[in-house]
Amino acid sequence: MTLLLTPVLVAVLCVVIAVIITTSRKTETTESAAEVPSEAEARPWADQDLQDDTEISAKENEDDDWADSYEEENLPHVPYSPGGYPVEVMLERSQDFYTLMNKRRSVRFISPDPVPQEVIDNVIRTAGTAPSGAHTEPWTFVVVSDPETKHQIRLIVEEEEEVNYRQRMGDKWVNDLARLKTNWVKEYLDVAPYLVLVFKQTYGILPNGKKRTHYYNEISVSICCGILLAALQNVGLVTVTSTPLNCGPKLRELLKRPANEKLLMLLPVGYPASDATVPDLTRKPLEDVMVHV
Amino acid sequence: MTLLLTPVLVAVLCVVIAVIITTSRKTETTESAAEVPSEAEARPWADQDLQDDTEISAKENEDDDWADSYEEENLPHVPYSPGGYPVEVMLERSQDFYTLMNKRRSVRFISPDPVPQEVIDNVIRTAGTAPSGAHTEPWTFVVVSDPETKHQIRLIVEEEEEVNYRQRMGDKWVNDLARLKTNWVKEYLDVAPYLVLVFKQTYGILPNGKKRTHYYNEISVSICCGILLAALQNVGLVTVTSTPLNCGPKLRELLKRPANEKLLMLLPVGYPASDATVPDLTRKPLEDVMVHV
Repeated sequence: MTLLLTPVLVAVLCVVIAVIITTSRKTETTESAAEVPSEAEARPWADQDLQDDTEISAKENEDDDWADSYEEENLPHVPYSPGGYPVEVMLERSQDFYTLMNKRRSVRFISPDPVPQEVIDNVIRTAGTAPSGAHTEPWTFVVVSDPETKHQIRLIVEEEEEVNYRQRMGDKWVNDLARLKTNWVKEYLDVAPYLVLVFKQTYGILPNGKKRTHYYNEISVSICCGILLAALQNVGLVTVTSTPLNCGPKLRELLKRPANEKLLMLLPVGYPASDATVPDLTRKPLEDVMVHV
Repeated sequence: MTLLLTPVLVAVLCVVIAVIITTSRKTETTESAAEVPSEAEARPWADQDLQDDTEISAKENEDDDWADSYEEENLPHVPYSPGGYPVEVMLERSQDFYTLMNKRRSVRFISPDPVPQEVIDNVIRTAGTAPSGAHTEPWTFVVVSDPETKHQIRLIVEEEEEVNYRQRMGDKWVNDLARLKTNWVKEYLDVAPYLVLVFKQTYGILPNGKKRTHYYNEISVSICCGILLAALQNVGLVTVTSTPLNCGPKLRELLKRPANEKLLMLLPVGYPASDATVPDLTRKPLEDVMVHV
């Protein structure tokens, strides 16, 4: 009987072991699928550190209308009567502001001439008037004028850019290295009197120590940057919009920013160099961007 | 012998069946984990239709420096000398623009008084001067003044808002319905002379019919909206920033926008109502948003 059963027992043991192995393997797959976003979900330009790592709990935190935050519900309301302009003045102001803003260009050739800090302060103050989801004001502006820190930033950004460009070339680019190099050498990071690094705060810390998710933080901070660009143009300063997202973690470390802050934009700021050039681009006409219903 | 083996065979069969069931169940789990983003990955405020459905292929399309697009590389460069201002003028302009922008508030009480279309045209033109990743200008502004369309938009937005608020209340809110109702009734969608619906173009169509991914399209369009808010404030018009993302598909259908366009923002635009009020909010002081290195 014992002898007769042995092969059967072995078979049963084999099956049991197979079950155990199969189960553990499937569990691993499931876990890794949950942790690593699939290619289609991943945003290609955002590394892990830069994704919103806010804790998403329930739908109750959603709020489409940004003026509807719970805090605001309990605030007293005050009259809002900002004045206004006669129609002909409105028309003129709308035209003048368009003319001013339409002269704005992304400029990579920045003069080393010093710019008064007070002007930069006012520009940042202006950016900080932007609306934000539930009035969280989820932005931090790190204004760097220290030459050594600017140089460290340049090294970090150029290293990452070189990797990007070399990978591209490895894949299908046949241009010579010298030409490509102009794309990853960013002299302006040393030269510009200021580098403005704009961080989005993905969450805040409440007085009770709990995390408070900042919904819409990326949209809010991007809107804020739009106003910042307008403010720079208004005083005759230039910048070039860049989103060195892969450098975010290193730059955050360099600048000693807390874990809830993620780099969104890096803007070198200064006067345009006297020999600055820009690509001869045009903008879409109004009829290509606006539909009237 | 046959009789002796029967219970053992049954046991083996049971184990085999168990293996089959376990395997199929684990496969299901794995598949659903891969298809549905986990709670931590999902952006709570973006429904499926509104996520970037751009085809993500290789890293070569990444470009941190927005002025570095391939098209621009081949464009002739032209001198850029926009003039500029003496330092004291810069200081004054920076202060004046801050004062103007700091008066901006999100206003939900909008006057039905008509606003000249030409002012709106100039405001949209101004927004269109924003920088964008690889100069794709990935925005479409749908300006709605038709009363029937405005009302349809209101119905869609209010329906979604009511669902949101009722769900919240079901979970843990104990406020009475009448009070909450003020949060989902959006009279201004009927009353404001214009509703500006800002769509982001997640991809474009190349002359050869292929899709061209618009990287950074959401950041670009949000920056553009920041400049739009500045342009509105500059002419004395008001708005309230809202991101009714869950209504995106319905509003896109209503306005007959193509599949590559996703709603990002809905801005009612007009003069403030004579009895407009705003919550008595303050903004963070400069030292809370700026760090100087």
